[in-house]
Amino acid sequence: MKKVPNRTFLTEDELPKQYYNIAADMPNKIRPYLHPATFEPVGPADLAPLFPMALIEQEMATDRYIDIPKEVQEVYATMRPSPLVRAYRLEKALGTPAKIYYKYEGTNPSGSHKLNTAVPQAFYNKAEGIKRIATETGAGQWGTALSIACSMYDMECAVYMVRVSYDQKPYRKTLIETYGASILPSPSNQTNVGRAILEKDPNSLGSLGIAISEAVEDAATHDDTHYALGSVLNHVIIHQSIIGLEAKKQFDKVDDYPDIVIGCNGGGSNFSGLAFPFVHDKIVDGVDTEFIAVEPAACPKLTKGLFAYDFGDTAGMAPVTPMYSLGHDFVPAGIHAGGLRYHGDSALLSQLFDDGIVGAQAVHQTEVFKAAVQFAKTESILPAPESAHAILVAMQKALECKESGEEKTIFFNLSGHGHFDLSAYEAYLGGNMQDFEYTDEMLKAGLATMPNIPFQ
Amino acid sequence: MKKVPNRTFLTEDELPKQYYNIAADMPNKIRPYLHPATFEPVGPADLAPLFPMALIEQEMATDRYIDIPKEVQEVYATMRPSPLVRAYRLEKALGTPAKIYYKYEGTNPSGSHKLNTAVPQAFYNKAEGIKRIATETGAGQWGTALSIACSMYDMECAVYMVRVSYDQKPYRKTLIETYGASILPSPSNQTNVGRAILEKDPNSLGSLGIAISEAVEDAATHDDTHYALGSVLNHVIIHQSIIGLEAKKQFDKVDDYPDIVIGCNGGGSNFSGLAFPFVHDKIVDGVDTEFIAVEPAACPKLTKGLFAYDFGDTAGMAPVTPMYSLGHDFVPAGIHAGGLRYHGDSALLSQLFDDGIVGAQAVHQTEVFKAAVQFAKTESILPAPESAHAILVAMQKALECKESGEEKTIFFNLSGHGHFDLSAYEAYLGGNMQDFEYTDEMLKAGLATMPNIPFQ
Repeated sequence: MKKVPNRTFLTEDELPKQYYNIAADMPNKIRPYLHPATFEPVGPADLAPLFPMALIEQEMATDRYIDIPKEVQEVYATMRPSPLVRAYRLEKALGTPAKIYYKYEGTNPSGSHKLNTAVPQAFYNKAEGIKRIATETGAGQWGTALSIACSMYDMECAVYMVRVSYDQKPYRKTLIETYGASILPSPSNQTNVGRAILEKDPNSLGSLGIAISEAVEDAATHDDTHYALGSVLNHVIIHQSIIGLEAKKQFDKVDDYPDIVIGCNGGGSNFSGLAFPFVHDKIVDGVDTEFIAVEPAACPKLTKGLFAYDFGDTAGMAPVTPMYSLGHDFVPAGIHAGGLRYHGDSALLSQLFDDGIVGAQAVHQTEVFKAAVQFAKTESILPAPESAHAILVAMQKALECKESGEEKTIFFNLSGHGHFDLSAYEAYLGGNMQDFEYTDEMLKAGLATMPNIPFQ
Repeated sequence: MKKVPNRTFLTEDELPKQYYNIAADMPNKIRPYLHPATFEPVGPADLAPLFPMALIEQEMATDRYIDIPKEVQEVYATMRPSPLVRAYRLEKALGTPAKIYYKYEGTNPSGSHKLNTAVPQAFYNKAEGIKRIATETGAGQWGTALSIACSMYDMECAVYMVRVSYDQKPYRKTLIETYGASILPSPSNQTNVGRAILEKDPNSLGSLGIAISEAVEDAATHDDTHYALGSVLNHVIIHQSIIGLEAKKQFDKVDDYPDIVIGCNGGGSNFSGLAFPFVHDKIVDGVDTEFIAVEPAACPKLTKGLFAYDFGDTAGMAPVTPMYSLGHDFVPAGIHAGGLRYHGDSALLSQLFDDGIVGAQAVHQTEVFKAAVQFAKTESILPAPESAHAILVAMQKALECKESGEEKTIFFNLSGHGHFDLSAYEAYLGGNMQDFEYTDEMLKAGLATMPNIPFQ
């Protein structure tokens, strides 16, 4: 049998020309988004102050495949495909009969999968005449990606960065400014939401929920400005399907197919982008694949949250969506995987999890960093802390195969590099990292803030 | 005509199986290295305390092609080829009829071309039973690369990092430690050289010359330890030929060939690795290609140095080599491109420059960073400050083509990303960056320290 190459690419001609939309195939469709004031289902007009109509259409689309605009294909050709990597050295180090593959999204200029959706979001906004986009960022990966995409289309970009990350990661600020975007610590004094929070607590560390509220207010109060979100929403997950679609073609080339598909889970787009094109095969063709969304034990929405309507942001300005949530007032412990510290989850992923089509697992950050360091020493790539959640579970599964002797094919999303997360590695190597575990009692307060709207 | 792809790769089967050694083809061979104490030509035995015999043989080899060990080919297959990128967006932004290409070496785990030589150096040392390698690092790219390579072969690695960089770049320290290496600020109290310097000046900022002396002393005084250098030496330049060899195959695929080849120049391996396989065509086949080694005006060895014998390190422990040098006591101004702050140059490159086969140009760092930011905004990649020296000159050449209407093919080495150089970008964007220009008077002191050994 011919040896599988270490890295499998695609030619420009082979790059996907359409996104995949799982809404077409899921057995139970998602419930409608609700207006945050009236709790009535939102229509396109309600979302128009925030998003261009092309993205609103994608948000509500039920088509299985959605054309990638030619202009976006051209940009993808400068940065994609990402390689499908066979982790020979990791397999050897673990002594497993399993075959381990990962899709490495850290090779594009933004260093993570976030650029996959930043590009079409900037493109559609530009096409609608928008001059400026406001957004939030936690760890900084999304803010970096959107600032790069806006530089491509010569648009202004305003990034509200969670205060604690802004202070901890000054280099993210410089990186985002190099691409010409402006960046503010959130809560800021630029919005009503921010000023109100600062009045109560001038030293507020901020949160993703607060930063979203600020960016939404910014967009809603500026005529030339739209809002952009880096995860959670359907159109974001549609864009990220490029990862899984490429991977399927790459697996075809090496004549293999995953038995287990693993991704980390913050707002859902990282896992879903990789997994949904394979979930298609499970739903439509009955392929027996195991799917695992890996979340931090410090933000356990799928494993310990409620499936119900909840606000997407702290101030209740974003649409109310049906999702697994810990409550929109829940502030997760300050783990180093800032990209996974979101109280809720994608409506699509939430529904598929509730239907038992995909599974979930919560893990602690010290075991995550132990896996990250072992991965760095064997596969040589320094992973982002978020991505390392997927690495840990992939390694656990590979070790289970070692026990059982099964030659399973394990596939995970290495969604980004950790070049801007070295303070986290420093904390781990220095023995200064804690784990967080919530009791049911502790989670109650957050869950109590959910609006209690019954599912129809 | 078929459009050239944005990025051109090679399959694993197409990766080079041999390195190229320009010593076979240069019209004037380099003069022998001399022993630093006796000034007599060194033989293999003199170098044996520092290097494995396989590398010493490469250092003195005159074969045109040198086999890449199978084990090293296997590692290269996990990280190579680097893409040949057609810079369509930069061309458009400049409005030039020129075709601009770059080889992007920043996609491997170390983020720069340095890993190309770190891997074979670690391999040959391991094969000779060596357990530990000592080295120096300036900006940190070489230290990172060698620590990764040593983790591949389960060897210890001790990195002496120039004190000022060690203090400015704490994340490089964590990165190197994550791969299991140890790192010390240089001058350190671990060596006689370091202790002597600290006694005179406890606050010494260190220099590459000092750090080399420390690493050489470490290797010479530990039985199980060898020394490794990240540039300058012939075997390093032989390993880096992988860049240019791949590029030639990639240019074949897109049916093009460079008119101008550009690389930045510190110790010489960055430029030479890209250029020498093309210099072969100039020497052997008379192809009319222009070669430009770009150096900082703050360390202008080719444009203002002397071609003579000089010490490779500050303490005079390394071999004396025939090279363009500013004198081994010369301490270049503290520019942000730390990787280009070496007083001397590769013997091979020095000879070819002296023979008029390759050219050189000195540039200032503020114009370099201006080009870097424009590059980031158009090609989306944040370049290392070192690599940005090549970008600047490539852009200047492209603008000359705009004037003349010539459709030249311009090719440069984008040798690494700038993810660990954001303090430099911060200084530039904040208007806190100075240029340095030396008068002949200022350079005299450094040149006066050269040992004054006449060329035969």
